Amino acid sequence: MAIQSSLGTETIAASSTNETIDVQKDLAMLDASKLRINLADRLKPVPTPENVVFGKHMSDHMLVATYDPSSGWSEPEIKPYGPLLLDPTSSCFHYSTSLFEGMKAYSGPDGESRLFRPELNMARMVRSAERVALPPFDPNELLKLIKRLVQIESRWIPQESGYSLYIRPTIIGTRPYIGMGASDYATLFVVCCPAGLYFRRGAKMLSLMTLGAHVRAWPGGTGGHKISANYAATFLPQQVAAERGYDQVLWLLGDRITEAGAMNFFVVRKRSDGDLDLITAPLDGTVLPGVTRDSVLSLAGAHGHGITLPNLPPSLKIHVQECTFTTSDLSQWAEDGTLIEAFSAGTAVVIVSIGRIGLEGETDIILPKQESGMGPVAEAMCGMITAIQEGREQWSGWSVLCD
Amino acid sequence: MAIQSSLGTETIAASSTNETIDVQKDLAMLDASKLRINLADRLKPVPTPENVVFGKHMSDHMLVATYDPSSGWSEPEIKPYGPLLLDPTSSCFHYSTSLFEGMKAYSGPDGESRLFRPELNMARMVRSAERVALPPFDPNELLKLIKRLVQIESRWIPQESGYSLYIRPTIIGTRPYIGMGASDYATLFVVCCPAGLYFRRGAKMLSLMTLGAHVRAWPGGTGGHKISANYAATFLPQQVAAERGYDQVLWLLGDRITEAGAMNFFVVRKRSDGDLDLITAPLDGTVLPGVTRDSVLSLAGAHGHGITLPNLPPSLKIHVQECTFTTSDLSQWAEDGTLIEAFSAGTAVVIVSIGRIGLEGETDIILPKQESGMGPVAEAMCGMITAIQEGREQWSGWSVLCD
Repeated sequence: MAIQSSLGTETIAASSTNETIDVQKDLAMLDASKLRINLADRLKPVPTPENVVFGKHMSDHMLVATYDPSSGWSEPEIKPYGPLLLDPTSSCFHYSTSLFEGMKAYSGPDGESRLFRPELNMARMVRSAERVALPPFDPNELLKLIKRLVQIESRWIPQESGYSLYIRPTIIGTRPYIGMGASDYATLFVVCCPAGLYFRRGAKMLSLMTLGAHVRAWPGGTGGHKISANYAATFLPQQVAAERGYDQVLWLLGDRITEAGAMNFFVVRKRSDGDLDLITAPLDGTVLPGVTRDSVLSLAGAHGHGITLPNLPPSLKIHVQECTFTTSDLSQWAEDGTLIEAFSAGTAVVIVSIGRIGLEGETDIILPKQESGMGPVAEAMCGMITAIQEGREQWSGWSVLCD
Repeated sequence: MAIQSSLGTETIAASSTNETIDVQKDLAMLDASKLRINLADRLKPVPTPENVVFGKHMSDHMLVATYDPSSGWSEPEIKPYGPLLLDPTSSCFHYSTSLFEGMKAYSGPDGESRLFRPELNMARMVRSAERVALPPFDPNELLKLIKRLVQIESRWIPQESGYSLYIRPTIIGTRPYIGMGASDYATLFVVCCPAGLYFRRGAKMLSLMTLGAHVRAWPGGTGGHKISANYAATFLPQQVAAERGYDQVLWLLGDRITEAGAMNFFVVRKRSDGDLDLITAPLDGTVLPGVTRDSVLSLAGAHGHGITLPNLPPSLKIHVQECTFTTSDLSQWAEDGTLIEAFSAGTAVVIVSIGRIGLEGETDIILPKQESGMGPVAEAMCGMITAIQEGREQWSGWSVLCD
């Protein structure tokens, strides 16, 4: 049996004789300096911003690298976007050995392409690969390759504020063998598409519905990793919620609130001293460590200390509370009038405000109406994060040039 | 948004105008009478039984049908085994919208090909498709198609007892769109390979290790469905167990025992009245409803009532106990001498006896040694199930001819 032992080397048990001998073999690492670029002969028309539908218009090129247990990572290649050719026994089809990331590239006021905190996506992707026992890779090399791809696809980044180029780095297990085991073959690919507003709803706020019978993630499970397997079971409950007239599922673990749809979930509560509590579930392994989640919490703590969130009084204190909270808490806070807003956060949506939460579709918690479709904290967060992403504001090196 | 409403029809929300109109459209159902057969020009050499490695030698042909939301199921096709061409945005890569079944075809003493309780696999596959929101299909039509494929591949069924043709029906979501949602495109395929003994271990019994930090399935999760997403998270713990010298993981939920590796788990306990208790975890949604599991429980109940399991006294009563049991129970039963054997059951392995159970790798429960490598109940079950599968014994219509 071949067990992946460390980055770059592998212990091979040779069993062609009766004796087992261990052979240390050098395996190639993912190496951006070996990139081959093969540009498309014909380029596609880029949709105008008003015609952008999220995820429908893939750009001209894709990045691909493959892993083979006998040689390691192939030379990465940027080549024309096109289909993958895979054996029907490929591990990803049968055992969901796959993972992905969501990132965005923006066009700054200087015309330069930039990424938002990409090192967080790369680090999370390394952890995802470990968790589903896919081959390891060097995240710095992958980031160099993604930057190069973004440069090549820069004409696909809409210039308008609120628009971006969505980037989907993915690794799939391609071991061509249906015996059950880790995939020691893999294909890494990165594809891109222009993105506008994820939910096309104008000023309408999102509605959520709890469905306690369906549990997205649990202690000892994989909810804290961005692996593909976390999503398969979410579509049926999502359809149930949609049939009941709600936009997304608010995921519970018992009565604890964990996530909303494929986003992190936040509530804002008014304290008796006039400050605000910004409450979200802790990273206990049942909640995705979202990049937007982390950014929201960081900005809340920094407000009035180095940064001022738009349209919020600089003196307002926002206390970050990463803690367990339940549907009973929500009902109680709505009743006593301290629940002033709720919102969800994720790379695709950035920030979206919640207007209504249906508890098992029976009782609705109604959040305060907002003229603009966003609560004041959600709007401030969305404005500041978008400004940093687009290079209009600078903060903590979060916006990274693709040069 | 298009919501799959029922088998064969779909409600389409047309949004090309500002108004949304519902159109009822006829969608083709999976139809075995429309099968097209395109045989390979060259056939591969079939490995001799002693050279069979599970899952490594795929047969000459595969069955394929595709689903498109505008037309429904395509005409199914049996064609030369070969790779699939898939868009990189295909749903299965990103959101694990995929599922599979494991079945086996046997060559009977009459030379006829037969399947074992295939209607159970088909029914479970329908439930799996529902659970991951993939398009529905008619299980009777798929079974007809699988029988036809087995007929065509009959030279791949080894004639030797204990050997079979393993069949892997699979459905993958192929919606070419990375926006998060159910896959309304799918590819159904069935591939085959000859199978011998799954674990090549002679008379050595399997060892298991509990790893309480990793939880395979959870109430409200998908452990009761055979979907691909259940397997991704199992390979890392499996590697940990292997590094500690154990063959497979014994999965826990808290201290409750659920499954072993990708198999159902059973213990046999001697009662004070001389009868036996056959204990396995109940089908509460955290345990796969295995076909071999069901067969073991049925045969235990039937022993002495219409069937006599080999080498067991016909008067022996085996009491089936589908109930929750814990690692503490196991330790207690080992200590008081009532735990006489443990085994696992699944389609690939049929039955495999357990020799040792490492509790978190710290304390080992040692099961009674067996000369043959199998406990008496495991051996009796394996013998009877294999005999029925191979058509040497008849029972309850479990063996189904491929004619």
